[in-house]
Amino acid sequence: DKPLSIISGPCQMESREHAMMIAGTLKEITEKLGIGFVFKASFDKANRTSIKGARGIGLANALPVFEEIKKEFGVPVLTDVHSPEQCAEVASVVDILQIPAFLCRQTDLVVAAAETGKVVNVKKGQFLAPWDMKNVVEKVTESGNPNVMTTERGVSFGYNALVSDMRALPELASIGAPVIFDATHSVQQPASKGASTGGQREYVPVLARAAVAVGVAGVFMETHDDPDNAPSDGPNAVYLSDMEALLKNLKAFDELSKQL
Amino acid sequence: DKPLSIISGPCQMESREHAMMIAGTLKEITEKLGIGFVFKASFDKANRTSIKGARGIGLANALPVFEEIKKEFGVPVLTDVHSPEQCAEVASVVDILQIPAFLCRQTDLVVAAAETGKVVNVKKGQFLAPWDMKNVVEKVTESGNPNVMTTERGVSFGYNALVSDMRALPELASIGAPVIFDATHSVQQPASKGASTGGQREYVPVLARAAVAVGVAGVFMETHDDPDNAPSDGPNAVYLSDMEALLKNLKAFDELSKQL
Amino acid sequence: DKPLSIISGPCQMESREHAMMIAGTLKEITEKLGIGFVFKASFDKANRTSIKGARGIGLANALPVFEEIKKEFGVPVLTDVHSPEQCAEVASVVDILQIPAFLCRQTDLVVAAAETGKVVNVKKGQFLAPWDMKNVVEKVTESGNPNVMTTERGVSFGYNALVSDMRALPELASIGAPVIFDATHSVQQPASKGASTGGQREYVPVLARAAVAVGVAGVFMETHDDPDNAPSDGPNAVYLSDMEALLKNLKAFDELSKQL
Amino acid sequence: DKPLSIISGPCQMESREHAMMIAGTLKEITEKLGIGFVFKASFDKANRTSIKGARGIGLANALPVFEEIKKEFGVPVLTDVHSPEQCAEVASVVDILQIPAFLCRQTDLVVAAAETGKVVNVKKGQFLAPWDMKNVVEKVTESGNPNVMTTERGVSFGYNALVSDMRALPELASIGAPVIFDATHSVQQPASKGASTGGQREYVPVLARAAVAVGVAGVFMETHDDPDNAPSDGPNAVYLSDMEALLKNLKAFDELSKQL
Repeated sequence: DKPLSIISGPCQMESREHAMMIAGTLKEITEKLGIGFVFKASFDKANRTSIKGARGIGLANALPVFEEIKKEFGVPVLTDVHSPEQCAEVASVVDILQIPAFLCRQTDLVVAAAETGKVVNVKKGQFLAPWDMKNVVEKVTESGNPNVMTTERGVSFGYNALVSDMRALPELASIGAPVIFDATHSVQQPASKGASTGGQREYVPVLARAAVAVGVAGVFMETHDDPDNAPSDGPNAVYLSDMEALLKNLKAFDELSKQL
Repeated sequence: DKPLSIISGPCQMESREHAMMIAGTLKEITEKLGIGFVFKASFDKANRTSIKGARGIGLANALPVFEEIKKEFGVPVLTDVHSPEQCAEVASVVDILQIPAFLCRQTDLVVAAAETGKVVNVKKGQFLAPWDMKNVVEKVTESGNPNVMTTERGVSFGYNALVSDMRALPELASIGAPVIFDATHSVQQPASKGASTGGQREYVPVLARAAVAVGVAGVFMETHDDPDNAPSDGPNAVYLSDMEALLKNLKAFDELSKQL
Repeated sequence: DKPLSIISGPCQMESREHAMMIAGTLKEITEKLGIGFVFKASFDKANRTSIKGARGIGLANALPVFEEIKKEFGVPVLTDVHSPEQCAEVASVVDILQIPAFLCRQTDLVVAAAETGKVVNVKKGQFLAPWDMKNVVEKVTESGNPNVMTTERGVSFGYNALVSDMRALPELASIGAPVIFDATHSVQQPASKGASTGGQREYVPVLARAAVAVGVAGVFMETHDDPDNAPSDGPNAVYLSDMEALLKNLKAFDELSKQL
Repeated sequence: DKPLSIISGPCQMESREHAMMIAGTLKEITEKLGIGFVFKASFDKANRTSIKGARGIGLANALPVFEEIKKEFGVPVLTDVHSPEQCAEVASVVDILQIPAFLCRQTDLVVAAAETGKVVNVKKGQFLAPWDMKNVVEKVTESGNPNVMTTERGVSFGYNALVSDMRALPELASIGAPVIFDATHSVQQPASKGASTGGQREYVPVLARAAVAVGVAGVFMETHDDPDNAPSDGPNAVYLSDMEALLKNLKAFDELSKQL
């Protein structure tokens, strides 16, 4: 029952300057509020809706930025991995390797991430029940790595829609690993805009609040200073200028939830 | 943003003594905690899974008990109606007429309930989107009765299962009527036991807490002193002996939610 | 394994002339093709999306038209009932009493329909699994009436959407009563147009063909000479002028399915 | 509107002898019936439910067997690929590279498969709408390879369950690539047995028949001489001894469907 942490940052790492600016802003806010902070950005968007969607700056360009953020702000960093081959290189800098939801059943990737010894955060597939994650978590722990977390990010609910089942949070917790609620991707409307994915930014605080009240180790929320011009997941990113008020609110719910 | 109320009682009215005992216990708890209380019981279970399920004591037997509860404890009472013909008689005693979820689209029933002038609480069908309730609410208001509430009770999610979408609460609130979260029926597992319906009692506090954190006017929760022997919905009823602790908890979340 | 029958007609009975015209046209087509025909029309649409939707001409006006259709064309007629009180009067003329999907769990209605001794066709609720219909069928048979049929009409699939599960057809058949596939309501897009329900007429032949290939006793399909101006369910009604070709096609699949 | 083809074989390639036996048996049956035949087997099961599930004999062992099957029986062969690196090597022997459903959005894999110039069969993710496959197909065609097929294999429907939407077949066909219906994986009950996936073999012929009646280029069906002892997907594999009767039946529906 440790206090709330957030995993936050832009969806894509766009540039060194942009990543540093967002990391610095979030560091300041979370330090003031006494909330844990893990910086998150993706170096590659490997599963864009359309082949024309922007992919990102790549691993070689991103690693030095992650390193600088760790040094400058003293915060752990998280990024997602897409192939077994990437895991060791990513782990040379990054603290938490995240397995994307679509890939959560790919044994080689999960095992390669586990074998780095770093923390592995596995996102629950949109096609999985919460209890199905027990087998996924075991793919990490049976590889000799006890440092695993799971993340709820919504489950398929008809076409081009997800729903967040709050019962999933205690179900996942019963597996024994810390549970993160991903409020950003839970409000995706997958492929709802034809060649890209829509989102319902207005529901990020609603679902985050519900999840924190139920009880989670952390909340995953992407943020951007200019979401309308973000290269991916803009429609569900929180305005950077709204983060402080939102986090203050979530902290209050977290304290209440964990004192009860 | 008034303080939280609960709608609570046994699923079925089983006897005068049983109803009075539960009403009295809940009155005492809610008064101590400063929570609003509406007593709820059904006089007839008109849509049992099996024709062999117990139906209840009937309207004629139930009305005097509702009357006695109102006088003895000074609390409003709620019951569900199943046909237009029942509405006027029920309204002669009962304060809130509830439209069952399966019947929420039956125009004649909704209009007959509305025409009594009493408060009408319409449960959202398991087959409806939250925004679909706008048309349902209008069936009440266009009948000249502005006193209408809506209740979220889960939406179909595959076979024999429901899921609670917390986004539904602000969606329903945007219609303009007070919103109740029914934590009892949201954890039903419809017809999952063959000739009867199962339930996940352990998730009542989880979902109730999430809903109160998001923000609702009230929570609907059925309770029983001996749920394992209750004639209906026992698997999802809260033990009467657990109600005080649960309500204290919900009150704390409600206060936090409404001060923010 | 009797040859295919259809249950068809306009969604609402609009007038004597209109009903007679459609009944006559369908009689001619089905006689030519050697397909069984039951005429269907509703005298009241009791669960319109909006309170402003047209309700229909009423029972008193509809019964003489049903009677005339029976005499003139020698075909059985079907209509839906919404309250226990209607059943006896409807049964004085109508051959098959249909229980609407939303009402399939209302014990009093199902029993009242059963007690007329007429055939009872229960539509499976959008919120039910196919195996749940066993209990519903027993509500009819335990009332002393063995003449019961079930109808598949799609199951809730996210918000404002249905999906047709072809596995439901053999599941329903295993209960022991003849199974109808309702190709009209299976392609509804419930409440998708705000104050009314949309539909995908283009999928009626697709789903009907699939269902007949799997094997059913009959297909339910609403038809209209001018669907765009029909008072209800126009978007999913088949053009009357397309019925002959469609039925010829379905008959071929039915013969193949039943000879195998 | 070419005649029906099937893609069939054991889920896993278990041994040279076993693969040759099944390929030979299927070749004989399909030749007799005049049905196209593509042999399918997996060299690696990369996304087993549990880390303890058998993975398969591997690419190096499987390629010579695929080569022998092609020579001995004169049939094209299909297998699934899991990483971009595998594609060129697989394409040196295999005629159709299949993208697994969970991986259908992984751009690098889809592009690498496309760049081999071989036919690419992309299975629709359980989390995708049929129209979402337009973007996936474009990932192949924009890579310069027009030889692409799509496969429907069920869509998430609550937890641990799939449903087959027959409307998906014409929706997929409208994208312009041949459509396969995977009757084996459509009847999976994902992870329903805790550490492995269950299945409903009895519904394979039901859904296959429906799909062929609606109209498809081919049917994907896994088969095994001893499904109860198959290392994976046994519960939904068709008995090899049942294949001839089933295919004869499907051929009749295909002929009817395509003559209309």
